[in-house]
Amino acid sequence: MVIDALIQKIKEKKSPCVVGIDPEWSKLPDCYKNTGLTKPEALLQWATDVIDSVAEIVPAVKPQMAFFEVFGAEGIAVHEKVVRYAHEKGLIVVDDSKRNDIGNTAKAYAFAHLAKDGPINSDFLTVSPFLGTDSLQPFIDTAKAEGKGLFVLVKTSNPSSVEISEAVTASGEKVRDWLAGYVNTIGEECVGVEGYSAIGAVVGATYPGEAEDLRKIMKNNFFLVPGYGAQGGGAADVASSFNEDGLGALVNSSRGILYHHVNVPGFEGSREQYCAIVKAQAEAMQKAIYSELKKHYPEMVY
Amino acid sequence: MVIDALIQKIKEKKSPCVVGIDPEWSKLPDCYKNTGLTKPEALLQWATDVIDSVAEIVPAVKPQMAFFEVFGAEGIAVHEKVVRYAHEKGLIVVDDSKRNDIGNTAKAYAFAHLAKDGPINSDFLTVSPFLGTDSLQPFIDTAKAEGKGLFVLVKTSNPSSVEISEAVTASGEKVRDWLAGYVNTIGEECVGVEGYSAIGAVVGATYPGEAEDLRKIMKNNFFLVPGYGAQGGGAADVASSFNEDGLGALVNSSRGILYHHVNVPGFEGSREQYCAIVKAQAEAMQKAIYSELKKHYPEMVY
Repeated sequence: MVIDALIQKIKEKKSPCVVGIDPEWSKLPDCYKNTGLTKPEALLQWATDVIDSVAEIVPAVKPQMAFFEVFGAEGIAVHEKVVRYAHEKGLIVVDDSKRNDIGNTAKAYAFAHLAKDGPINSDFLTVSPFLGTDSLQPFIDTAKAEGKGLFVLVKTSNPSSVEISEAVTASGEKVRDWLAGYVNTIGEECVGVEGYSAIGAVVGATYPGEAEDLRKIMKNNFFLVPGYGAQGGGAADVASSFNEDGLGALVNSSRGILYHHVNVPGFEGSREQYCAIVKAQAEAMQKAIYSELKKHYPEMVY
Repeated sequence: MVIDALIQKIKEKKSPCVVGIDPEWSKLPDCYKNTGLTKPEALLQWATDVIDSVAEIVPAVKPQMAFFEVFGAEGIAVHEKVVRYAHEKGLIVVDDSKRNDIGNTAKAYAFAHLAKDGPINSDFLTVSPFLGTDSLQPFIDTAKAEGKGLFVLVKTSNPSSVEISEAVTASGEKVRDWLAGYVNTIGEECVGVEGYSAIGAVVGATYPGEAEDLRKIMKNNFFLVPGYGAQGGGAADVASSFNEDGLGALVNSSRGILYHHVNVPGFEGSREQYCAIVKAQAEAMQKAIYSELKKHYPEMVY
């Protein structure tokens, strides 16, 4: 099961971190753009450089599908190659596509993104729950059958996320708490040998204590935590998303790693220098989060 | 604006109907599969046959992205060709992808699916609102800038849809009513010359009166109504999604048209026969809905 493989890699690398792969053409350094390569070739060169730079520092990467869809079918072909390359480098792939639909259509999305015989073959997929629990079932069935995992959107950090996630359900709970309970219950069917479920949640807390509250409901579910670095959150803010074993969360940074080169005064534009900056940013993130966790959870297991 | 073009075509064809393009390989008739064509070629042949068969009967088609993603980058390339072919045949394209994300990522999805300079260039896109109104804004901005449209998921017809859509927001409304109010208000920025907004809603009613209630909140927004035919709803069930002018809704059928051939006793498997069945099913849908609307709304404008 990928959840056990993920935990193994987190322990080995002392790194509950994931690097986003968000190819925004206008932000890519010129060394990938003015080289005679076609756009898809350039995207792939950039993405494989990023993967090479972070492969020893993080257990996982998170390609963001939207930024590949921008390039059409050619972009999707690059996405498929990026997933394969990350796998070759021993990385877990979190496919951030926020897919959602019902019945056969949900089943088709689940197959496309998660199936070992499918075109993408990611390890984890993010899914959006607006349509209700029967819409999530085909994703859960596929994850279970394939030994893969999901991150269900429960709470995100954008201001408007409260509009629906804090609405009150028929059971008298806030939608986010009700979803957390659902993720925990349904996740019991997919618990790996490490004690964590392959069904996790996207949790971007907007106030102190929110992640802790959700942690209490989802004790053995992994949180995918967005917003580290560029979106404003620091290491201290994410510690409460973890359990005392130092597990249970995967903290993502995308722009703060991929596009930090513009903030480096001496950046002269070479691929080597760009890769060194990407690597240094990933290392800084790993160190900051790991030392914060050690401080909060001295009994942590890695 | 595509909303005006849609209304013009609905009037011309006397048909507020849309045919889904859902390529499920196992359900495709053998005449497309055992022909020596590659899979992508076969999918394109099938989809263009369907489009040719219904082009004079309906104003729009609705390719379901999930069923193209199953085939990977090659499937996405077919999807792009299907959209172009539908446009060549004068059809409006409703891109049913239920995309959702925040900030730059939402903007990337909006560009990929709706922009005239983007790879897909659809006319309308379905979007999922779980992340809240700030997550929908980039889609609205793009739709507005490109003269395109959206259908925001407000209420779907699957049993679990009530879990979130009937939760109660901070304003004391059910999520679906609050979303309906939001769609109506934000849609005021994109009203065409025919008086309807380019920002519509997906409304699959689960009880009598639900569509009517939502209609009262979204007077000048189009409803995309799923579930005609195969999903159990008939012409009488959808009339309440319309206004008295006979406009304001687009009723979709997918499987009931695409895969009806298996219910036809004399089906011998030729493309010609398959296309005739698809055409007859689309005509039957158009007739049933148009005559039901005439009965309900004798003052309708077409």
